[in-house]
Amino acid sequence: MNKPVLYSLTLAALAGTVSPLSAQQAPESTDKRPNIILFMVDDMGWQDTSLPFWTEKTYYNSVYETPNMERLAKQGMMFTQAYACPLSSATRCSLITGANNVRHRVTNWTLEKNKTTDRSSETLQLPDWNYNGVSQVPGTNNTYVGTSFVELLRQSGYHTIHCGKAHFGAIDTPGENPIHWGFEVNIAGHAAGGLASYLSEVNYGHTKDGKPYSLMSIPGLEDYWGTGTFVTEALTQEAIKALDKAKKYNQPFYLYMAHYAIHIPIDKDMRFFPKYVRKGLSDKEAAYASLIEGMDKSLGDLMDWLEKNGEADNTIFIFMSDNGGLAAEPGWRDGTPHTQNAPLRSGKGSMYEGGIREPMIVKWPGEVQPDTRCDKYLIIEDFYPTILEMAGVKDYQTVAPIDGISFMPMLKQTGDTSKGRALVWNFPNIWGNDGPGINLNCAIRKDDWKLVYYYETGKKELFNIPEDIGETNDVAAQHPDIVKKLSKELGEYLRKAGGQRPSFKATGKACPWPDEI
Amino acid sequence: MNKPVLYSLTLAALAGTVSPLSAQQAPESTDKRPNIILFMVDDMGWQDTSLPFWTEKTYYNSVYETPNMERLAKQGMMFTQAYACPLSSATRCSLITGANNVRHRVTNWTLEKNKTTDRSSETLQLPDWNYNGVSQVPGTNNTYVGTSFVELLRQSGYHTIHCGKAHFGAIDTPGENPIHWGFEVNIAGHAAGGLASYLSEVNYGHTKDGKPYSLMSIPGLEDYWGTGTFVTEALTQEAIKALDKAKKYNQPFYLYMAHYAIHIPIDKDMRFFPKYVRKGLSDKEAAYASLIEGMDKSLGDLMDWLEKNGEADNTIFIFMSDNGGLAAEPGWRDGTPHTQNAPLRSGKGSMYEGGIREPMIVKWPGEVQPDTRCDKYLIIEDFYPTILEMAGVKDYQTVAPIDGISFMPMLKQTGDTSKGRALVWNFPNIWGNDGPGINLNCAIRKDDWKLVYYYETGKKELFNIPEDIGETNDVAAQHPDIVKKLSKELGEYLRKAGGQRPSFKATGKACPWPDEI
Repeated sequence: MNKPVLYSLTLAALAGTVSPLSAQQAPESTDKRPNIILFMVDDMGWQDTSLPFWTEKTYYNSVYETPNMERLAKQGMMFTQAYACPLSSATRCSLITGANNVRHRVTNWTLEKNKTTDRSSETLQLPDWNYNGVSQVPGTNNTYVGTSFVELLRQSGYHTIHCGKAHFGAIDTPGENPIHWGFEVNIAGHAAGGLASYLSEVNYGHTKDGKPYSLMSIPGLEDYWGTGTFVTEALTQEAIKALDKAKKYNQPFYLYMAHYAIHIPIDKDMRFFPKYVRKGLSDKEAAYASLIEGMDKSLGDLMDWLEKNGEADNTIFIFMSDNGGLAAEPGWRDGTPHTQNAPLRSGKGSMYEGGIREPMIVKWPGEVQPDTRCDKYLIIEDFYPTILEMAGVKDYQTVAPIDGISFMPMLKQTGDTSKGRALVWNFPNIWGNDGPGINLNCAIRKDDWKLVYYYETGKKELFNIPEDIGETNDVAAQHPDIVKKLSKELGEYLRKAGGQRPSFKATGKACPWPDEI
Repeated sequence: MNKPVLYSLTLAALAGTVSPLSAQQAPESTDKRPNIILFMVDDMGWQDTSLPFWTEKTYYNSVYETPNMERLAKQGMMFTQAYACPLSSATRCSLITGANNVRHRVTNWTLEKNKTTDRSSETLQLPDWNYNGVSQVPGTNNTYVGTSFVELLRQSGYHTIHCGKAHFGAIDTPGENPIHWGFEVNIAGHAAGGLASYLSEVNYGHTKDGKPYSLMSIPGLEDYWGTGTFVTEALTQEAIKALDKAKKYNQPFYLYMAHYAIHIPIDKDMRFFPKYVRKGLSDKEAAYASLIEGMDKSLGDLMDWLEKNGEADNTIFIFMSDNGGLAAEPGWRDGTPHTQNAPLRSGKGSMYEGGIREPMIVKWPGEVQPDTRCDKYLIIEDFYPTILEMAGVKDYQTVAPIDGISFMPMLKQTGDTSKGRALVWNFPNIWGNDGPGINLNCAIRKDDWKLVYYYETGKKELFNIPEDIGETNDVAAQHPDIVKKLSKELGEYLRKAGGQRPSFKATGKACPWPDEI
């Protein structure tokens, strides 16, 4: 055995007094810390809701119906500049480890062990990124090893529930199973970041003999096979069963309600599909709308459960999505590609706002003022320290640095953690789709400015985000000083945090960092 | 929130060097700590094997066939005085928390929340014992709160697998689920300490519609329903799948192979049943023998897996049972009741050796001398510190005291932890069956002597165990000094560790402690 790494966890929040002689008494539940629900939607864009996150109500805001998001927003704070990463893996790995995507290097999407999902390039050699995802233990190549905040919650006394999509580690790596990350219950989560089907008619991706026919077949929902239950509903019913159980345990709970919705395939949720057809939407668009409303119905069901069970006042409810709405994939949507997140530009996979800006709401009775909006920015790794702070878990130690910063001051309206803060993204990869701002780039957001740098061409774009939310007006030429300053800060961060970059096949030389050109 | 209890875990064994910049490299597996398999049989008596643990080969040794126990013993050390508790719950709660049964107060068997399983007494009021079992978190009445050694193994980097019977906490308490105790995989374990059926023909206790028809229906083996697979075999196949997966994780593993066998109902394992009928055994006795050989076949399959996968030399294999063989329950066996563990007296539920002395073997290549016997005594809670020591986990802290003492000196033949050590059992309860040494008593073993004290009658029995393994010769009258000394030590331990005792209904007075009479 090599020299071991020592780490110690000081857990401030294990509540209740424990002694061998008091155990037989009937203790009151002394752990009154809040329950926490993180409701994470997959591939949901900033406009995929009837709740306007922009200053104006858009076409899609008027088409889609998400009454429960409106209900949640009335009870909490909307965040209009909440960022994730352009793709699911990067976001979810940042969430669970607290590391920025530059550092964890899970920059493209993961699925199979030791198989990159990059498309190849004739001109560029792509970096050896962490295509095996994140891991909670060392020993696997091409993984980033981090400490899970869910594990810390659990060790502090929370009952921890995973429901839906996990997508932390590749198949056959230690990170593949949510249980390994500190979840005590795993409903339907595994390595895959997508789903074979929403439909119980095909057993969510299983043959009649019960065999999975895809790596994305959803595990663990056998009870719903053939019952006509859309998977969004099946997951909700299972989550509610887990909450019923959690209530018996007399522990605070953490529920990660991570819907497979609204990821492709855009199946029809027939509870809602006909309504949107009657509104005049095409079949594809109506199906997409039905995925959204099915997700919203789940949100409402969980809110109802909290109210019926007397837990609404002691539960923090966080709504989030993992990347921008899919707008590039051919064939899935109607209309002009790359426009579905307007006023934001582009969508999933892109460094433009359409790829990374998410609908986010936080409800916290007594702590967060209802019916408020916060226009300060934050990023997905900030959830890590924030949620631990919400749970009263302090002085924890981790095997790797935490890049996230608690956004508690914004929640409580006591401060602004975005001021002067640089957010950084890196995507030295080639995704399956192409389009505006997609592939082989990196970006920095600081105050009003955002710089996007393209590794292969050396191109730099500069946008003033508050003035130009659609990123249609590249002002790099007008502001060489800002470009230079942001390039330097971006380059320095990338090098410091271990960021990766492609290299040119012709010369074998690495593409320049943004401050080298 | 009340003032929190702080605890810190310093984990010495997280192997490999972890740094953000090394994560992308392809690391060698640096964690070479041994795998550990604890193979725990249910209700297996000291003679339920062809491997003689006594100095003589008994009738049952000659009838049963356990070639793989013989194989394991040739490669390791047999323990001829390995103790558990008279019942499963007490043993398994001591195992997982490291606490003596006096302290944890889970002295009778557990199943349903807030329901005692004690039979009632006309004369005695039984204590309010911990009928909800053990829990890893506070907040539930009538539980003992302890830190799981499996959780410590897991936090140190072990991949932890539970297969079979759990029986830690009652239904709907936090301790009911092995995952909550630090297992990363749970195959078929839940609150119940028994099984509805071994038979796939009845889906191990489920109706054709898939509904459990008993609280003891075995969960999670749907793939084997209707396949003709005896549950012992189904569990083995699932365990081997989990080991295949563990090998991919590149972590050391801990497998708790906790068979439901050989607990009642004594179903026929048809792979072995006919052979025993041909030997002349009655149907009942042949069925019991088939349960034993089915368990032994599982043992061999696991040993084979280790050898085929190059893990045999780096795996510690521990064989154990949780209480004596069932010899009191009417109707299940043929022959004279209470004799089936001979030369030991009585069986499951009893303070006599037949209730608490177990077949135990430890194989540890390079550390434990093959084909050896150890005649020193130890007790089930000793497994806790021993296994952690085997795994190199040091300086751990727990929420409750650890009563177990590492038996590593005996394994390595460097010392004798039994010398001068008192082992204590308490059973202030009434089990479902009656018989010699069963119910409403406590006992102490120290060096050669064993004292059994009966709460209701005040009777004390003294045996010299090496001279009188069958406990047929009560020498209390001949050795009043030893009786007095052991009574004092037993009484003091019971009071110090929070032991419970019945009281007389007529007077409301507690039954005397053994040193009060």
